[in-house]
Amino acid sequence: MALIVQKYGGSSVADAEKILNVASRVARAHDDGNQVVITISAMGNTTDELIELAGQVTGHPNPREMDALLSTGEMVSCTLMAMALRDMGYDAISLSGAQAGIHTDTSYGKARIAGIDPARVHQELDRGNIVIVAGFQGVTEDMDVTTLGRGGSDTTAVALAAGLGAARCEIYTDVDGIYTADPKLVPSARKMDEVGFEEMLELASYGAKMNPRSIEFGMYYNVPILVASSFSDNPGTIIHGGGDMEVNVGEIRNRVRGIATDTNVAKITIHGVTDRPGIAASLFQPLADADVSVDVIVQNASVRGTTDMTFTVNRTDLARALEVVEPIMRELGSGSYTSADNLAKISIVGTGMQDAPGYASRMFRALADGDINIDMITTSEIRITCLVDERQLADAANALHEAFQLDKPQEHAG
Amino acid sequence: MALIVQKYGGSSVADAEKILNVASRVARAHDDGNQVVITISAMGNTTDELIELAGQVTGHPNPREMDALLSTGEMVSCTLMAMALRDMGYDAISLSGAQAGIHTDTSYGKARIAGIDPARVHQELDRGNIVIVAGFQGVTEDMDVTTLGRGGSDTTAVALAAGLGAARCEIYTDVDGIYTADPKLVPSARKMDEVGFEEMLELASYGAKMNPRSIEFGMYYNVPILVASSFSDNPGTIIHGGGDMEVNVGEIRNRVRGIATDTNVAKITIHGVTDRPGIAASLFQPLADADVSVDVIVQNASVRGTTDMTFTVNRTDLARALEVVEPIMRELGSGSYTSADNLAKISIVGTGMQDAPGYASRMFRALADGDINIDMITTSEIRITCLVDERQLADAANALHEAFQLDKPQEHAG
Repeated sequence: MALIVQKYGGSSVADAEKILNVASRVARAHDDGNQVVITISAMGNTTDELIELAGQVTGHPNPREMDALLSTGEMVSCTLMAMALRDMGYDAISLSGAQAGIHTDTSYGKARIAGIDPARVHQELDRGNIVIVAGFQGVTEDMDVTTLGRGGSDTTAVALAAGLGAARCEIYTDVDGIYTADPKLVPSARKMDEVGFEEMLELASYGAKMNPRSIEFGMYYNVPILVASSFSDNPGTIIHGGGDMEVNVGEIRNRVRGIATDTNVAKITIHGVTDRPGIAASLFQPLADADVSVDVIVQNASVRGTTDMTFTVNRTDLARALEVVEPIMRELGSGSYTSADNLAKISIVGTGMQDAPGYASRMFRALADGDINIDMITTSEIRITCLVDERQLADAANALHEAFQLDKPQEHAG
Repeated sequence: MALIVQKYGGSSVADAEKILNVASRVARAHDDGNQVVITISAMGNTTDELIELAGQVTGHPNPREMDALLSTGEMVSCTLMAMALRDMGYDAISLSGAQAGIHTDTSYGKARIAGIDPARVHQELDRGNIVIVAGFQGVTEDMDVTTLGRGGSDTTAVALAAGLGAARCEIYTDVDGIYTADPKLVPSARKMDEVGFEEMLELASYGAKMNPRSIEFGMYYNVPILVASSFSDNPGTIIHGGGDMEVNVGEIRNRVRGIATDTNVAKITIHGVTDRPGIAASLFQPLADADVSVDVIVQNASVRGTTDMTFTVNRTDLARALEVVEPIMRELGSGSYTSADNLAKISIVGTGMQDAPGYASRMFRALADGDINIDMITTSEIRITCLVDERQLADAANALHEAFQLDKPQEHAG
């Protein structure tokens, strides 16, 4: 008897009929002889409606109260799911994040899971219950309710799977797996049967629809994660830590696994910055304090003691970033900056790349052949990222997908 | 600095604008130098909407899940109220029933408060917060959420006031106090400035719009309860335990304080019941087991070893009561029953009545003068109740209101 954790998103439980459909899928997993824990999001647009309601009362909702408010959305969907399963003759029980022992820090709106106390969930499983845990929420030491922020239900699911020692975590969503590229950009994009945690982390950070924190959890605790559709029975994509699975594909595995794309990119260049030690800190510390994440940073070689400093931020953070930059420009010795928000990031991702040279040049060649100009370049151990003009993103994605033969099943690719 | 507990009903917080209005009233109580705890109901029709949602999923919602579902309604209104107060510059915090230490038994849907642990509420008050506690809900020993049933928010308020040692509990609602009779029936009905707990208990049990359990709580812990309108600044009615207040009205106090009316009445008569010991138990135990409350019971004098047994039940329980009666009729030696659902109860209520004779005869005389037939009579220490034809209820109420001079201020009545 395996213990599995399933997660269903808000669109999968948007109304009573969909809740009953999901209940049937959950029941099937139970009938197959598994102990089943599920975590679900709020129904459809509930969260947005609650935010709207708070907006009618105040323009500046208190974060603690906002979290307590939003957490009700998941309680509604969870209790309805428990009722649906009981109506079908199954023993089922809903648990809030607090009841399920999901302990977090006090960062309201984006709390991080500090630990899982699995006692109550195990107790309910031992009683024969299907256990339905409210996603997206946890509880502080003081028993105050927190929410985990965007994608939080995925994190709940993987953290629960880790905390319960589950055999695997299954994320059911409105796509049927992880693709080699965004199918909206690349028509020949292919669903992958499996992908490594690190690869998925890069894919997720750079565009694929999964919360990076949940993948970090899976990687850290080595919980395999299945991503599949809640509307079909197609096999999805397994995200795993390598090991046995790797053996099957072994040496013939294509080292580029997928193309990640992201249009939430803006670029800021500060011109004529005085080139002295500590200059980067005096720029990037205030940005960090303002909660602006800086991604790519490029500093040109110093010419006559001054340099140009270019960095990217999320496009949604551009205005906030400029508010930080303007007052400290003089301090940096600079008299001007430029910004652009018409850029996109495109990355090739694959764990084998660091051991095999030539991937970067193959990427740059493919882009050049497509007349696509590269604005900036940044790399990690398993990723090479180029900034390109947003209007050329689809061309770039298709060119790279073809250059690395990602439309072909991985066993036959080289 | 006094500690006061205020309660606002669902119609007082039905939308964002009304929430802001209530927030202003709460803020005023705080500005007056009080420590303020408030408990509120769910917004407007929220509870009905949640019940409807559950009905879309199952015809037989599990009671535990139903309570967890319904409890979200109060969390929404409480968090919005906290946001509104904070927006106005006040420190405020919302607490669920669990967080506020409201412990109950496990009777889902109609849980009874087992105790209040006031530590968290006191802690938040000491921090300068206005504390907003979700009404209508509590938590079991196992940390499962319960609801207190109809009128539960009133009970929450009074129990909190008792548990916190509050100076008084203020119930704000859509009426501006307790009346000498239902103003819809009796145009000359007068708002009372004060009324005793026991009197209020009889008035509430027999028609006035307040939850009897909350009055019992107030009586047991001697917490004065103010009932007033949340839409005006009119002084309401204080429900209290006598003592000092009593002195002021003393001997000249009119011993009939109010007229209670109730149309939720049905009558069942079982004919020709064998008159032997234990016969009442064999009828009323099955009714109690079926959760049917029996009110007035009249057994005629035995004629040739048989008797007629007549009793009243809530009109809403009539069908269920008859389901119980039919199979045991033969056991009772009876061959037939009759039932009627066109009756109403009318009562005169007042603590002084038991010490002064003549009230009953004055009541019967007033009804007789109005050509109103009395179907059954029952009395308690502070109440005399008659069953009358429902169509004559308004006439009866006006006749009694006039006979006992309830339209005149109590200090001058005799």
